[in-house]
Amino acid sequence: MTGSFDHHFSARANAMKASDVRELLKLLQAPDMISFAGGLPNPATFPTEIIREITNDILSGDARSALQYGITEGYLPLREAVAERMRGKRIDVTTDNVGIVSGSQQVIDLVGKVFIDPGDSIVVSAPTYLTALTGFAVYNARFETVPIDEDNMRMDLFEDKLKTLTSDSRHPKLIYALPNFQNPAGVTMPERNRRRLIDLASEHDLIILEDDPYGELRYRGDDVRPIKSFDDEGRVVYMSTFSKILAPGLRIGWMLAHPDILRKLIIAKQSSDVCTNVLGQVISHEYIARGHIDTQIGKIRAMYGRKMDLMLDGMKRFMPDGIEWITPEGGMFLWATLPEGLSSGELLEKALKKGVAFVSGRAFFPDPADGMSTMRLNFTYPSDDLIEEGLRRLGAVIKEEMGAP
Amino acid sequence: MTGSFDHHFSARANAMKASDVRELLKLLQAPDMISFAGGLPNPATFPTEIIREITNDILSGDARSALQYGITEGYLPLREAVAERMRGKRIDVTTDNVGIVSGSQQVIDLVGKVFIDPGDSIVVSAPTYLTALTGFAVYNARFETVPIDEDNMRMDLFEDKLKTLTSDSRHPKLIYALPNFQNPAGVTMPERNRRRLIDLASEHDLIILEDDPYGELRYRGDDVRPIKSFDDEGRVVYMSTFSKILAPGLRIGWMLAHPDILRKLIIAKQSSDVCTNVLGQVISHEYIARGHIDTQIGKIRAMYGRKMDLMLDGMKRFMPDGIEWITPEGGMFLWATLPEGLSSGELLEKALKKGVAFVSGRAFFPDPADGMSTMRLNFTYPSDDLIEEGLRRLGAVIKEEMGAP
Repeated sequence: MTGSFDHHFSARANAMKASDVRELLKLLQAPDMISFAGGLPNPATFPTEIIREITNDILSGDARSALQYGITEGYLPLREAVAERMRGKRIDVTTDNVGIVSGSQQVIDLVGKVFIDPGDSIVVSAPTYLTALTGFAVYNARFETVPIDEDNMRMDLFEDKLKTLTSDSRHPKLIYALPNFQNPAGVTMPERNRRRLIDLASEHDLIILEDDPYGELRYRGDDVRPIKSFDDEGRVVYMSTFSKILAPGLRIGWMLAHPDILRKLIIAKQSSDVCTNVLGQVISHEYIARGHIDTQIGKIRAMYGRKMDLMLDGMKRFMPDGIEWITPEGGMFLWATLPEGLSSGELLEKALKKGVAFVSGRAFFPDPADGMSTMRLNFTYPSDDLIEEGLRRLGAVIKEEMGAP
Repeated sequence: MTGSFDHHFSARANAMKASDVRELLKLLQAPDMISFAGGLPNPATFPTEIIREITNDILSGDARSALQYGITEGYLPLREAVAERMRGKRIDVTTDNVGIVSGSQQVIDLVGKVFIDPGDSIVVSAPTYLTALTGFAVYNARFETVPIDEDNMRMDLFEDKLKTLTSDSRHPKLIYALPNFQNPAGVTMPERNRRRLIDLASEHDLIILEDDPYGELRYRGDDVRPIKSFDDEGRVVYMSTFSKILAPGLRIGWMLAHPDILRKLIIAKQSSDVCTNVLGQVISHEYIARGHIDTQIGKIRAMYGRKMDLMLDGMKRFMPDGIEWITPEGGMFLWATLPEGLSSGELLEKALKKGVAFVSGRAFFPDPADGMSTMRLNFTYPSDDLIEEGLRRLGAVIKEEMGAP
């Protein structure tokens, strides 16, 4: 073939580019590199021996069922266990509201399929989860952005945005919300704002996608009820995952939705991947059934909470004046902002040469002109001593960049 | 919420309906039912003890890697092993051409994302794999159909179709081909037709998606080289799966493509599900690495070949004159046609009451007016003795329906 396949590709494919974050991860192979760039759980948390025992029991028992196709909705005992756990979060659901997915990222793809016609608007915070943006872009969504503060999406500006859109006859289709320890900024939406969000969604007849991968990863303060727990009209699709509380390599997540919505999501999943890997579903169920999951969440909270404190401490010690950051209460990330005029993208190139990596915040903004001075630092993956050393290196690079060596 | 969510759904979601086959499967729970309706591998073929050993070894060894996120392209040793096997089929590929997917159904979704703009035409045989139709329909594809005969897609009619489309300026985007033991009709495309298909694709600058889930399931005759093995321009995307030769519950498939195409498919996969479940990938690789796969394929061929012969024998014994069927050389299905005027959909209702199930062939035709008298019978799942008894029941129902009791 002579050269390019571009004329064969769809318009969406010609617009696709690889995630900056993922491309960056490939460049981080230098042996002495300290990376705050990823978003990976710490593998030392994986309960490998328990998973080995469980899996051995499954494959010594009814192995054939665990190795056969499953129904698209998911393994029934796992759906039941998830429903029970979700009721513990004050979400009023039964098994009929639960679908198991191939990691919660799949919910974004399925929601795109089921709700988004080309040109439909989705309201997102800026910044927001990068791969939600690329996932919805496949369905030719338009993004309407609302800035954040320490309380997550700014509710006053969200109300303004809704008014503007409505008066322009650009009624949005969906609100994408990441209320707990948001990726990338680590910010959490207070309960009053969640209640207000649900009221506004009802008033404007909107669907909310509540993305909650980090809800269990709270290290300080009190849990806030999920948006879905205030939903008495079935307008919230809720998604979460075992990736952050058990093991991401199993690729098991779940979604909660009104049965009429769930039915469409399941039909969309049929033609996407038939069903979620059954062995991973049976392992996840058995892990819950044997009573391990809450102990495991406790262990993860202890480790990540310690790492978060180490990072907050290191930021205070090594960052020059003029750098600001948000103090999270949980999750996996710390969000920092350089003095105005400094580019985190340019800083990153210098930092990589000094053996420390982070993610420039620009990728998390739908508008590429935004977020130039922002950076996301992951604290769950690096070992404790490397958090300190990495921040020492990063602080030195920033000081040099600010002309104050 | 007052009643319906329809006004929230995308146009594609409002057009979605559950697969007839899958909905039917749920109705087949009657205890005495003999089902030729499904398309499941026989779980007695699953090498459960070997998988248990392998999985135990993996989780006793580098468990953390098997439980962590993997790269979107797939587990490198598995990609290498797949490339090597594919070279054994005379396909000229390296690891750089291989992507691992969450079951080969996912390739249909990814190809839809990467190639199909709304209204683009896809040439398919009629009948063809049902969930390819629903998968591509998500991307608002139009289907151009070419009838089949015992040699799979009719090449003379395919050429006519291309001429008509081209002269109408309706250049198709893609040819979807299922050359080996096609689902549903069990027909295989001879080598000369595969060569002709590639030549025509080159002449008309088309992309081919070659779907090959059953290639290893040959019980009679000689293997035919994959279409991809004649592709020296990178215009064939090839897909296959471990579901039929190892275990479908692992959800591990693969795709082969030109690196420029693979890159787009992988970006599309990033936002679809991040990566394929890693544990299943490591198990699949280890299964190949320990030298089990060819022995296993031999065992499956022996069992399914015997079942196919039992079904062909039963058809001869129990079907009245006027029923025709295609004799397959492999795969999982037998395709039969009732005398003109008899509806397989109506027959099915009566058959279910007599304790035997099949799939009405209509679902496999893009045009719902087609295939009214056709039926698909699966022979891999039922036990040997139930194949005979099921055909006895089915023959009796058909005789009654034909008014010749």
